[in-house]
Amino acid sequence: MEEGDTHSAANTITCKAAVVYGPGQPLVIQDVLVDPPKKMEVRIRILYTSICHTDLGAWLGTNEAQRAYPRILGHEASGVVESVGEGVTELKAGDHAVPIFNGECGSCDYCKSDKTNLCEKYRVNPLKSVMVNDGKCRFRSKEGGKPIFHFLNTSTFSEYTVLDSACVVKIDPTAPLRQMALLSCCIATGVGAVCNTAKVQPGSTVAVFGLGAVGLAVVEGARSRGASKIIGVDVNPDKLTKGQTMGVTHFVNPKELEKPVHEVIREMTGGGVEYSFECAGNLDVVREAFLSTHDGWGLTVVLGVHATPAMLPLHPMELFDGRRIVGSVFGDFKGKSQLPRLAQDCMRGVARLDEFITHQLPFEKINEAFQLLVRGKSLRCLLHLSSPQLN
Amino acid sequence: MEEGDTHSAANTITCKAAVVYGPGQPLVIQDVLVDPPKKMEVRIRILYTSICHTDLGAWLGTNEAQRAYPRILGHEASGVVESVGEGVTELKAGDHAVPIFNGECGSCDYCKSDKTNLCEKYRVNPLKSVMVNDGKCRFRSKEGGKPIFHFLNTSTFSEYTVLDSACVVKIDPTAPLRQMALLSCCIATGVGAVCNTAKVQPGSTVAVFGLGAVGLAVVEGARSRGASKIIGVDVNPDKLTKGQTMGVTHFVNPKELEKPVHEVIREMTGGGVEYSFECAGNLDVVREAFLSTHDGWGLTVVLGVHATPAMLPLHPMELFDGRRIVGSVFGDFKGKSQLPRLAQDCMRGVARLDEFITHQLPFEKINEAFQLLVRGKSLRCLLHLSSPQLN
Ligand SMILES: [Zn+2]
Ligand SMILES: [Zn+2]
Ligand SMILES: [Zn+2]
Ligand SMILES: [Zn+2]
Repeated sequence: MEEGDTHSAANTITCKAAVVYGPGQPLVIQDVLVDPPKKMEVRIRILYTSICHTDLGAWLGTNEAQRAYPRILGHEASGVVESVGEGVTELKAGDHAVPIFNGECGSCDYCKSDKTNLCEKYRVNPLKSVMVNDGKCRFRSKEGGKPIFHFLNTSTFSEYTVLDSACVVKIDPTAPLRQMALLSCCIATGVGAVCNTAKVQPGSTVAVFGLGAVGLAVVEGARSRGASKIIGVDVNPDKLTKGQTMGVTHFVNPKELEKPVHEVIREMTGGGVEYSFECAGNLDVVREAFLSTHDGWGLTVVLGVHATPAMLPLHPMELFDGRRIVGSVFGDFKGKSQLPRLAQDCMRGVARLDEFITHQLPFEKINEAFQLLVRGKSLRCLLHLSSPQLN
Repeated sequence: MEEGDTHSAANTITCKAAVVYGPGQPLVIQDVLVDPPKKMEVRIRILYTSICHTDLGAWLGTNEAQRAYPRILGHEASGVVESVGEGVTELKAGDHAVPIFNGECGSCDYCKSDKTNLCEKYRVNPLKSVMVNDGKCRFRSKEGGKPIFHFLNTSTFSEYTVLDSACVVKIDPTAPLRQMALLSCCIATGVGAVCNTAKVQPGSTVAVFGLGAVGLAVVEGARSRGASKIIGVDVNPDKLTKGQTMGVTHFVNPKELEKPVHEVIREMTGGGVEYSFECAGNLDVVREAFLSTHDGWGLTVVLGVHATPAMLPLHPMELFDGRRIVGSVFGDFKGKSQLPRLAQDCMRGVARLDEFITHQLPFEKINEAFQLLVRGKSLRCLLHLSSPQLN
């Protein structure tokens, strides 16, 4: 924020944001105008944000249908409520908050069902780039007032952002906000896939394909649920050390094998693991993950994003072997109602959030942080937006 | 049976069987020798048998890897235990019995798990053509003693057949054996898919793709579970009448539509059915069935056999809409332990077995019965093996 600005619920805020102007173009840190929150919206001061592969994909414009420029990306973050719009009662200025890209209105048929966490209006939607209320943007350029598009219900690469209150979770004020940024994507996705989607049982065997941040969050979840074997699969041998820290008991590098991964895993586990998690976003990996589970009762949870138009590499008859495959969005958490509990669980060690923060940089160095992720150097690089000290 | 034959546990029986000598060749009714049951085997006198599409496929040799000739097909049947081999204690001569192609040994890891009905040794296996005990056949030709292959653990197109005791279910002697023949495939498969695999809840909405015998058994199951809407989908308008008798509340003929079936079904049901069942063995139908369910919680159960090498026509990202798809074998029934209960359920009307028996013929006319099924004229043509009267 520029000094001297006034900012209240009634005012437009001028602050720094990182704006993308075209596919793969370096993000531009610039002043933007952030309108006050409208009905059932919340304006948040973002203190910490990190970058995940979904941001990378949107930045590169991998999926043309999802392109919209200029745009403010970002969806893993934490901050403090600055002001709330009309009708918002469960949040107030000063509340600690975590934005969620997969919202929960609490009142639609989906939110009322215990079978899904996909809210009718606020579910994750990479095609959406404006607010639900009026189809407009709350961000504008300081020069000229041109609209700047939103991203994934969140747009956290900005000192201030406006979200639907359905996409803001109030967090225990004693929880460290710095770590809580990770809750909003990789931790919820990975831990939830284990605890909510798969409901991994104590003593069971697990294989995790792809040991990035989501994969390691799966490992944390599996460890906390008492899995007896956690097999980590990654083509990058550097993932071994971190994986072991998190709870990986056996490491498999497909590049070092002379037979398919699933054969090796079946040999290691007397016929296959009970649960496999695909966190690589690769269709060949989906198939290996599927075949790595035990026939009769194996369950594969797909977490990776598959941008290509290719179809699932499974034969329909293979469904008759009793292996199941399901997708999991946001770890099947209903964000607003269940993330506060996850925050508490993390504080008592269910997932050790600090282990995921391998780098920290000031917000201004966001392009450097993107490169760390592109080059596979970081799990999560935490960007500090407002405070000069990197604690 | 020829008059004058002696038959006891110690003796080889000479009786009539229908033998296939090559792909699509008319079945030959001839005398065969049926050896006594060996350890943990049972010899059954078959009284009634019917023909299902799996028999058709095997007869036509659709899947080259599964061809084996000469062979005795047949897997839907009922009869009486003639004698038992060493070690068989739960069955004795005179017991009413139904053969099951998907056996249950009761002691393997699979049988001990409540998550699967796929027994390690006796699960359905179309590649198997000999007995598990010794890899040999219990059928031989009367002239020359040449082995005749088994089919699907059952081989019921014979007045006598030998099965592993894991593949024989003892049935309440008061249950009408004539009807019980249908339990061993289409009824168990369809009703079980509803009650065991999908666990359809009262008041829920169901779509059934393909109104053959299995599809209609699904309809019976859905009706008995109190489904509020049962949408029958078939390209054959003649299926409407029978479907309505069984409980179909809405009939959709894809040939009469100007848009995809799934769009029509979504319009009929406020976004999609809760459960869909694919009983057509067609990949385009699998996709329509999948898309006909409601996002967030829809479940598609695949029952059809898909012989082509084509892959599932689903995009991995579609799993993230909360729709699930699973296969179901033998209705997820553990046959030996759970079919006696199903027999009782059917006697009190859960599935009206007589509605499925559209034709009855003496065993000698089995080729005629095959043609009835090939030409879509019959649901089930019941063949009577031993009694001249068609009651
Ligand atoms: Zn909602
Ligand atoms: Zn993310
Ligand atoms: Zn078994
Ligand atoms: Zn059958």
